[in-house]
Amino acid sequence: MTSVDLEGLARRLPAGRVHEDPAWQAVFESDGLTAFRQHPRGVVIPQSQQEVIDIVRWCHEVGMPFVARGSGTSLSGGSLPVADGIVISLNRMRRILQMDPDNRTAVVEPGVVNLEVSRQAAAHGLYFAPDPSSQKICTIGGNIAFNSGGAHCLKYGMTSNHVLGMKVVTASGELVTLGGPSVESVGPDYTGLFVGSEGLFGIALEITLRLLPKPECFHTVLVGYRSLRAAGEAVSAVIDSGLLPGAMEIMEALAIQAAEAAVDCGYPEGAAAVLIVELEGPAERIESERRQLEAVIEQTDAFASVVAADEVQRAAIWAGRKSAFSAVGKLSPDFLVQDGVVPRKRLGEALERIEAFGKESGLRVANVFHAGDGNLHPLILFDDSKPGELERAEALAGRILRLCIEMGGSITGEHGVGMEKRAYLPEMYDEPTMGLMHRLRAAFDPKQISNPGKMFPGAEAPALQSHGLHPLEKAGVIFRE
Amino acid sequence: MTSVDLEGLARRLPAGRVHEDPAWQAVFESDGLTAFRQHPRGVVIPQSQQEVIDIVRWCHEVGMPFVARGSGTSLSGGSLPVADGIVISLNRMRRILQMDPDNRTAVVEPGVVNLEVSRQAAAHGLYFAPDPSSQKICTIGGNIAFNSGGAHCLKYGMTSNHVLGMKVVTASGELVTLGGPSVESVGPDYTGLFVGSEGLFGIALEITLRLLPKPECFHTVLVGYRSLRAAGEAVSAVIDSGLLPGAMEIMEALAIQAAEAAVDCGYPEGAAAVLIVELEGPAERIESERRQLEAVIEQTDAFASVVAADEVQRAAIWAGRKSAFSAVGKLSPDFLVQDGVVPRKRLGEALERIEAFGKESGLRVANVFHAGDGNLHPLILFDDSKPGELERAEALAGRILRLCIEMGGSITGEHGVGMEKRAYLPEMYDEPTMGLMHRLRAAFDPKQISNPGKMFPGAEAPALQSHGLHPLEKAGVIFRE
Repeated sequence: MTSVDLEGLARRLPAGRVHEDPAWQAVFESDGLTAFRQHPRGVVIPQSQQEVIDIVRWCHEVGMPFVARGSGTSLSGGSLPVADGIVISLNRMRRILQMDPDNRTAVVEPGVVNLEVSRQAAAHGLYFAPDPSSQKICTIGGNIAFNSGGAHCLKYGMTSNHVLGMKVVTASGELVTLGGPSVESVGPDYTGLFVGSEGLFGIALEITLRLLPKPECFHTVLVGYRSLRAAGEAVSAVIDSGLLPGAMEIMEALAIQAAEAAVDCGYPEGAAAVLIVELEGPAERIESERRQLEAVIEQTDAFASVVAADEVQRAAIWAGRKSAFSAVGKLSPDFLVQDGVVPRKRLGEALERIEAFGKESGLRVANVFHAGDGNLHPLILFDDSKPGELERAEALAGRILRLCIEMGGSITGEHGVGMEKRAYLPEMYDEPTMGLMHRLRAAFDPKQISNPGKMFPGAEAPALQSHGLHPLEKAGVIFRE
Repeated sequence: MTSVDLEGLARRLPAGRVHEDPAWQAVFESDGLTAFRQHPRGVVIPQSQQEVIDIVRWCHEVGMPFVARGSGTSLSGGSLPVADGIVISLNRMRRILQMDPDNRTAVVEPGVVNLEVSRQAAAHGLYFAPDPSSQKICTIGGNIAFNSGGAHCLKYGMTSNHVLGMKVVTASGELVTLGGPSVESVGPDYTGLFVGSEGLFGIALEITLRLLPKPECFHTVLVGYRSLRAAGEAVSAVIDSGLLPGAMEIMEALAIQAAEAAVDCGYPEGAAAVLIVELEGPAERIESERRQLEAVIEQTDAFASVVAADEVQRAAIWAGRKSAFSAVGKLSPDFLVQDGVVPRKRLGEALERIEAFGKESGLRVANVFHAGDGNLHPLILFDDSKPGELERAEALAGRILRLCIEMGGSITGEHGVGMEKRAYLPEMYDEPTMGLMHRLRAAFDPKQISNPGKMFPGAEAPALQSHGLHPLEKAGVIFRE
């Protein structure tokens, strides 16, 4: 516990920026759907870039740990406070500084909400492609910290593919410029290094985003299968046909049932799995791809197939998928969301083994996943009021992550390592590689004050406490994946 | 000058790996089209990954500078030897270790030639997308060092978009794993950090490449314009229409004339500029895009338009473009190739100013460029036998690079900083940013022995000497951009 008090910081800032009372601490004690709770020492809410810089420089001087935070929708415990540190809340840093339709770029502050960028860009026929399910509330700063994906990253890639440059204050208080206004930058991809660094390197103050022309039209198909394996095989068939859909998602029975109860999405009855495929692009092209897709689906073991006739039906199909995580929460008092990656061609094998793991542990698992890129989201259902169930759920999650590593995949696809998976990072990377990662971190943050305890194992961690829905989740304001 | 002799290294390796005689030194004294010459201390030709590791570890122990080298086609002086260091030639490291058509990946050693990957992948209907004009000879290791592009990077991105993971020996002799077999990796993009690092971080031993399905068909159009501006406006019109061609290239009169003399490519007579647009994809889609492109081109000031009727005509159109650099060499005893980036919408303005700069300096400039992404390649013609012309050419190149910086662009699109542009890096990035870059380098190479003198200004540099074509260039074996 650092003995520095926050008075010194408060004196450097305009009045009303620093909050130390328990009510404020409580607001920031948790993040997304993880089972962690931790009060921070204090909360600071800067209103300008210069204030952010001043805060970080003060933290570096006195050795005060800090966690930068947007909407706190992290699903890996990545935005959790640390006990002896401060939260720097960036929600007031939400200006869109420039919208350049000619060059198809936008310059934004980190607190801008993901969907707001697309809303503002829509006037020019453009949008920001990364679409995490939390996009109505999550911020660009958080997307950058965790290199967020979303259903459409199959076609468009992750956040890192859509960030061209950044003005950053490093954890050591230096103002640096990474990347630039164009895709072709000089030397190493420093922007790509910062994106996905989970808040350990510093704070992005200004971000140049790449915008894409809005697809002229969509073609969204919902297909029902009697087995998960048949749905998985359909995904391979689509990819092998040469089609590149915008999105390709699978939900299995338990998740379907939950979504149906929550948002009445009208998925085919009796499906063991549904597959959502969305094509997008110019009308004429979609017309031809649509025929190709129909022919592929016809060759699979589908028992039902629905094409969205209009935007309302398309929204209904997606509502089921996007509500899945919180909907599953209604089937069970508690659950853990997992996020692993396996090679696409080994999806079927991975799902069978996860099912077996679930049976062995006596816990239910609902699978929802980005099938096109092998990104699994097993939801592990448990009841924390029963002694030992949380621990069993954690152990099951661990087996699933180890399976992903063993299969040549990854312990995270888009949620990040955060608190939750930091113990598994050294199982994926050997000691020399971990050593290099630490040295790169030190280049940004020699004192290890920026989001300490996340990503790397060993540092002080918030307490693991009983699980509950995030207040915003309870209120139905956010749906996350 | 280090006093260590190479005997200690020779003793660690099988016989015949280390070469110190002047004949060997001379073979490696230059790289691509730059005006630098430097004999290395010695040349080492490892035959296995373990030998590369042993060499690097020895260099780190004794502080011996080294330059890893593939085919030496760098256009920025990036693969030039340093006087007191060794060249590690990787041409024997040319195994394709794995070809995985299911997951669309290939695992290769760094000395594999770019085009060889596509040749081997062709049996599975796949190819490796980055296509520098030197692709018949340049190696994957070099592509990684300089994050190479090519005409088709407009649609497919640079090398960094096609490298999933790497096994690397860092300059400090550690064996590390960056990235992995899938696009969704954990944390920061360490792979992206290594790609484009110009050999300053270490040597990639095994590289996992992403392969793409070969386009079903191509539609290649050559359009003639009476002015460069009209050609530039056509590029904007194509992009604004929503089309994303595989490539969009412009050559101006001087370059056309040179290419015509070299390869008889049949470009429209009297053109001030030609535009090459290539669409690629499934037949049905191309049929619809072809019509859209025709309509756009019709609205421009084109005076001639040729569609390649077959693969032979397509090859002829590309032969003109891909031979441009070496062909221009025939118009002038010497020339400098430049490589800058400006925002696409400011291309016309940039070209006008470059023309004015050329007139002021009394030197001819031939422009060839990747128009779709604002990547300029001005070729500055001069005669080194006339006193002061080389210096005037260098000064003109400098003005052009500063113009790129001033316009919000970059001093390199795909050739790298290397020797040639290292003085300009600090004009593009401020001191704190340069400081961060140095610290990141130190995380890989604390002794600064890996390709010293490149990218960053200030270190010892090879001598600038009179310019001449690379021996392979003279023999017509390579055409580079």
